[in-house]
Amino acid sequence: MTRVHNFNAGPAVLPPQALQQAQQELLDFRGTGMSILEISHRSTTFEAVMAETEADLRQMLGIPASYKVLFLQGGASLQFAMLPMNLMATGKRADYIVNGAWGKAALKEAQKLGPARLAGSSESTGFDRTPSSLELNPQAAYLHFTSNETIHGVQFWGEPTPSQGVPLACDMSSDFLSRPIVVSRYGVIYAGAQKNAGPAGVTVVILHEQLLERIPDGLPVMLDYKAQAAAGSMHNTPPCFAIYMVGLVLKWLKAEGGVEAIARRNQEKAGLVYAAIDNSGGFYRGHAERDCRSWMNVTFRLPTEALEAQFARQAEGQGMLGLKGHRSVGGLRASLYNALPLESAAALVQFMAEFQRVNG
Amino acid sequence: MTRVHNFNAGPAVLPPQALQQAQQELLDFRGTGMSILEISHRSTTFEAVMAETEADLRQMLGIPASYKVLFLQGGASLQFAMLPMNLMATGKRADYIVNGAWGKAALKEAQKLGPARLAGSSESTGFDRTPSSLELNPQAAYLHFTSNETIHGVQFWGEPTPSQGVPLACDMSSDFLSRPIVVSRYGVIYAGAQKNAGPAGVTVVILHEQLLERIPDGLPVMLDYKAQAAAGSMHNTPPCFAIYMVGLVLKWLKAEGGVEAIARRNQEKAGLVYAAIDNSGGFYRGHAERDCRSWMNVTFRLPTEALEAQFARQAEGQGMLGLKGHRSVGGLRASLYNALPLESAAALVQFMAEFQRVNG
Repeated sequence: MTRVHNFNAGPAVLPPQALQQAQQELLDFRGTGMSILEISHRSTTFEAVMAETEADLRQMLGIPASYKVLFLQGGASLQFAMLPMNLMATGKRADYIVNGAWGKAALKEAQKLGPARLAGSSESTGFDRTPSSLELNPQAAYLHFTSNETIHGVQFWGEPTPSQGVPLACDMSSDFLSRPIVVSRYGVIYAGAQKNAGPAGVTVVILHEQLLERIPDGLPVMLDYKAQAAAGSMHNTPPCFAIYMVGLVLKWLKAEGGVEAIARRNQEKAGLVYAAIDNSGGFYRGHAERDCRSWMNVTFRLPTEALEAQFARQAEGQGMLGLKGHRSVGGLRASLYNALPLESAAALVQFMAEFQRVNG
Repeated sequence: MTRVHNFNAGPAVLPPQALQQAQQELLDFRGTGMSILEISHRSTTFEAVMAETEADLRQMLGIPASYKVLFLQGGASLQFAMLPMNLMATGKRADYIVNGAWGKAALKEAQKLGPARLAGSSESTGFDRTPSSLELNPQAAYLHFTSNETIHGVQFWGEPTPSQGVPLACDMSSDFLSRPIVVSRYGVIYAGAQKNAGPAGVTVVILHEQLLERIPDGLPVMLDYKAQAAAGSMHNTPPCFAIYMVGLVLKWLKAEGGVEAIARRNQEKAGLVYAAIDNSGGFYRGHAERDCRSWMNVTFRLPTEALEAQFARQAEGQGMLGLKGHRSVGGLRASLYNALPLESAAALVQFMAEFQRVNG
C-alpha cells in the first residue's frame, strides 16, 4: 500500500485501517453474502451499522441524549438552506458571523429564505481572522458561525457567545471531530463528512430536540429536520456506504484515543508547519492572524505566484498532493486533517526548508 | 465469493464485476496512491470519473446533447420537491398520475409547493394497474408519472401521452436502465441509483436544457437545477464514491450488451416468476394486472399471511433474501434488477414449486 502525503482539503486523507477494513469486507459484509453496497437499509444488518455509528459519534463528542443525530445528504451547502427553512420560519431574524467564503455562502442562502443579517465580518481584512466585534440581535432565531473556514484557514478558538436564549448554529464541516467540543453550547451543529469524519456523500446534523418544536409544518419532507429525526434519517434510502465509512473512521478514532488525543496530534502537526512559516524570515507568509490560525488548513503565501506554482508542482513530484490553495484565493494550503500522519507534516516542513534554500 | 440470491428492492444486487473492481482499487485508485474515497472532486482524476460516467450513461440511454445530466443527492424523494420548486413556479398547475405509493408521495410533496393535481389514479383498485383514464390539463407545467412502482410492482408499458407542449416528468428510480427508452419523449427523468444504476447516495437527473429557462431565480443553490447544471453537479462536493460505482455498473452494462440486451434478460427472469404464479392454480396470486406487470418487482400473495411469512423465512434459509413485501402492503415481492442473475430467478421458481407442493 504505497500512500502519498495527502494534503487535500476534502475529500481528504482517511485512516488506512478504515480503508483496509472496507476493502476486506466489500464483497461480503459480516457474513451476509452481500456487499454493504447491496444491503437493504431496512435490514437488521444495516440498522446495526446506523446504530453503532450514531452511538460511537455520541460517545466521541459527548452528545447529550437531548440532541438528535441525523445522517443527511447534500453537504453543508444544503444545510445552508435547511437551517433557515427549519429555524428562521418564526419571522425572527437570524444572525450570521462571516469569516470566510463558507460563512458568506451560508448567509447568502439564508437571505434567499428570510431575514438573515450579518452580525460580524472579517471580509475587509481578507478573511484573515474571526470578527473582532459582533453586533448581536438578542431576539435572533439563531446565531450562525463557521468554526473553521477551510479556504482561508481561519478557526474559531472558543465559540462566539450568543445572547441569552439564542441557539448557536455551527457549520463544523472542516474541524468536526478534530478537537473536543461542548455540544450543550450549541443548538445545531452540522458537518459534511468528507474532511475528518469519512468520505463525501453524508452530512451529520446534531440538533437539540427542543428546536424541533419551532419547525413549521409543510416543509418538503427531505428538508424537514423533524421528519428526518422522526424517521431516524431513513425517510428514504440513506447514503448507506458513506455512513458505514463514517462508522469505520469513528472506530479508528476511538482506538487512537478519541478527540482529546487527536487534538494533541493535530496541534503538533499544525505547530510544525506554522513554525516553518514563522521561522522562514518572511519567505513563507501565513494568511491567518496568529490567534485565529487553523489546525486543519494552513494557508500561506510565497514571495511570488510563480514560486507558489513551482512549490506545488515540485511538492507533488515528491508525493505531497493537494497543496495548491483554493482557486478563489490562490496561494498554498496544507490541510492536516485527523488521518494525516505526523510524518506527512514533517515531510512538508522538510520540503519547505529545502525549497527556501534553493529559491529563497 | 459466496453470493446469496439477492431479491432486495433497493439497495439491491450489484454486478460482482463492479464490486470486485471497486475492491481491487479501493486502496490505490489508478495509481494515485490514494483511495477513490480520498481524492479531491476538483482533481483531474475525479473529473475524468465524472466525465466517463456521464458519457457512458449518455451512450447507454441515447441521451441527446440537448439534455443535461446531473448527479445529485437526496434520492427521488428530494426530487419530489425539487421538480415542482424548479418547474411549477410559473403558477401553472402540474398533473400527477398516481399508480402506487411513490407517485402518491410525489404528488403530496408537490402540493406543499404549489398547485399540483391528480390527473389519474389507480388507488381505488389497490394500485394494481396504471390508471385507465387520465384527465389532463393542456396547460400543465408538466405531467408526472412513476414508470415503475417498486412497492406495488406496477410498471408503465409505454409512456402516458401529455398534451402538446407539456413536458413529461418521470420518476424512473426502479426501472432506470432496465430497458431502452426514448429520452426525447421526456422533459425530466430522475432516478435514485440504488436499484439498477449503483449504490444508494446518488440520484441521476436528466432534463431538457430548455426547461432550465423556466426556473425561477432565488432558489437555494443546491435545489436549483440551473445552478447544478452550470456547475456540472459540482457546486459542492458530490457523492464521489457513489458516482464512481455508477460508472463501474455502466461499464458492466455496456459489456453485457447495453439496455437492449439487459431488457431481454429482465423479460426472461420476470417471465419465469410470473409463469410460476400463473401456473400455480391460484396458490400464488400476482398483485398487478397482467398488462401492468413489472419486470423489476414481482409482487404476489399466498393464501394466508402465515404462509407468506413462512415462505419468506424458508426462502431466506435457502439463501434467497429480500422477498418480504414492503411493510406498507405485505405479501411477497421479488425484485429482479439488472444485476440479478437468471439463476436466482430460476432458484426462486424452483423454491416456489417446492413450497406449494408441501403447503398447497
